[in-house]
Amino acid sequence: MTRTVLESKTKTVVIGFDEPFCVIGERINPTGRKKLAAELEEGNFSTIEQDALDQVACGATVLDINSGAVFTNKMADDPRYADNNFVEPPLMRELVSRVQALVDVPLCIDSSVPGALENGLEACEGRPLLNSVTGEEERLELILPLVKKYNVPVVAISNDDTGISEDPEVRFAVAKKIVERAADHGIPAHDIVVDPLVMPIGAMATAGEQVFTLVRRLRSELGVNTTCGASNVSFGLPNRHGINGAFLPMAIAAGMTSAIMNPLRLAEMEAIRAADLLMNHDPNGGAWINFSRIVDATQDGTSFTEASKAASDGARTRGGRRRRRA
Amino acid sequence: MTRTVLESKTKTVVIGFDEPFCVIGERINPTGRKKLAAELEEGNFSTIEQDALDQVACGATVLDINSGAVFTNKMADDPRYADNNFVEPPLMRELVSRVQALVDVPLCIDSSVPGALENGLEACEGRPLLNSVTGEEERLELILPLVKKYNVPVVAISNDDTGISEDPEVRFAVAKKIVERAADHGIPAHDIVVDPLVMPIGAMATAGEQVFTLVRRLRSELGVNTTCGASNVSFGLPNRHGINGAFLPMAIAAGMTSAIMNPLRLAEMEAIRAADLLMNHDPNGGAWINFSRIVDATQDGTSFTEASKAASDGARTRGGRRRRRA
Repeated sequence: MTRTVLESKTKTVVIGFDEPFCVIGERINPTGRKKLAAELEEGNFSTIEQDALDQVACGATVLDINSGAVFTNKMADDPRYADNNFVEPPLMRELVSRVQALVDVPLCIDSSVPGALENGLEACEGRPLLNSVTGEEERLELILPLVKKYNVPVVAISNDDTGISEDPEVRFAVAKKIVERAADHGIPAHDIVVDPLVMPIGAMATAGEQVFTLVRRLRSELGVNTTCGASNVSFGLPNRHGINGAFLPMAIAAGMTSAIMNPLRLAEMEAIRAADLLMNHDPNGGAWINFSRIVDATQDGTSFTEASKAASDGARTRGGRRRRRA
Repeated sequence: MTRTVLESKTKTVVIGFDEPFCVIGERINPTGRKKLAAELEEGNFSTIEQDALDQVACGATVLDINSGAVFTNKMADDPRYADNNFVEPPLMRELVSRVQALVDVPLCIDSSVPGALENGLEACEGRPLLNSVTGEEERLELILPLVKKYNVPVVAISNDDTGISEDPEVRFAVAKKIVERAADHGIPAHDIVVDPLVMPIGAMATAGEQVFTLVRRLRSELGVNTTCGASNVSFGLPNRHGINGAFLPMAIAAGMTSAIMNPLRLAEMEAIRAADLLMNHDPNGGAWINFSRIVDATQDGTSFTEASKAASDGARTRGGRRRRRA
């Protein structure tokens, strides 16, 4: 069975066909979060640190660290700040250091800038996930040597120099090409986590079926683990949590093994915990029963995050240290 | 593609691989509802009638009518009432007449008593679903001739004279036997809706996987539609709606085409509507958008049933008559 092994300083998380679904927290990402980007520009890491603690309390077992900030004010003073190659590498190092000083979970080093990826890999304790390589020739030649050099697993996104194909056959072929190219570099398939690309169902009615079919094929034909940006499926539609909360169990039933997502959402996390139970990835239902206590605790209006933190504090106190989640 | 055609007086509902999931409302059933049984014993049909209206408003497109009442008081006066063969046939006729006088949806005639099934079939307008035949020899020989005589589809439950097997291979073999025996009677596979039997996940950790695998096989190898008592999967566990709400999309992704269930539950109905959308069984997302308005209407504390009734009344008024759901 395919197992992708991630490590923090002291913990191991396995993404695998027989493992609980791996929730990769997506919130440490200044892209599209202007307020957060402005905080980072001022050297204020308080939101990042809160996000790290909250996401782990809510059940993320891996945290994505994206350094894609635009520093508008600094850019006005110094034109070098207009270049991501200048901004992101030191920011990534800072983000990684601060997050791993606070929480002991494996990280996912996420940037379009190779220098930021390398800085993240250097700063990281354990064995992080690298995010990402694509089927673009330039990207393959830049990223795969890094993956090999640091001996880390990598997210492979199934677009190439022609863009993102609407044809799932093409996306499968791109994934296959990446896996083959990785093999040429001596990188095994179990260290490739393919993102088959989830299209918005509102724009493409076959988007769900495409993902379910692709995940089954990626698993059976290439033997790889899979991930996705889960919330993309509901883009533009009302009651998005309802759609995401059905999509995740369906993707898990098809064999999806991880997602990059917001773990602070009760609907989505409940769907994942239930799907783990129904896939027989929650022996004796222990995780479900613990999760149900958190759901109960939200009945009086307590937020899911607060209820999760209270439960994880309780577990830490009772057990002497944080319970192992992976 | 397999299509099981059900009819009421004027409406057609198709259970099929390319159709929206068919919700068969389970509430008209005095088994385990003592208060309801007592009402029926007094000739009071008000709860039944309310259940019929509410279930259809909430999205059931078929209503199960179960006549399994125990008339405790009458039994004390007249020992004939201890016999279901005495109680159920006239009760079934009455239930069918009253329900179809109120709502125009196909019915599912549900009894262990052959005389009640035959009375239900006689009283029913259109083409009801018969519930049920099993792999038990006596049951096969009693029910299949009724199915043939009335030219109706039938629910086939995959237990036999040896009981309910925990081995899914045996349950598949029982289903196959029923389909073959039906063929001997001239009943086509598209008129058999197999219930592969959903075990409680709390008692059997492989229960989910068993159902998903069985549904895929029943569909690909026997070409039949499927149904189940969906809520059974969560029996004995906390936060049952959370489990049911993940189970239904996973079963739908595996190919399940109907369930006998409580349509008054928001979590389960939301999961089904989202799964329909994600399976491309909701062209243009119209059903999802309508459903989302009902979800929005519950935000102020209005019950799902009340919000659904308001929406269906509005649709009736706007469109001049009830919107077609099937």
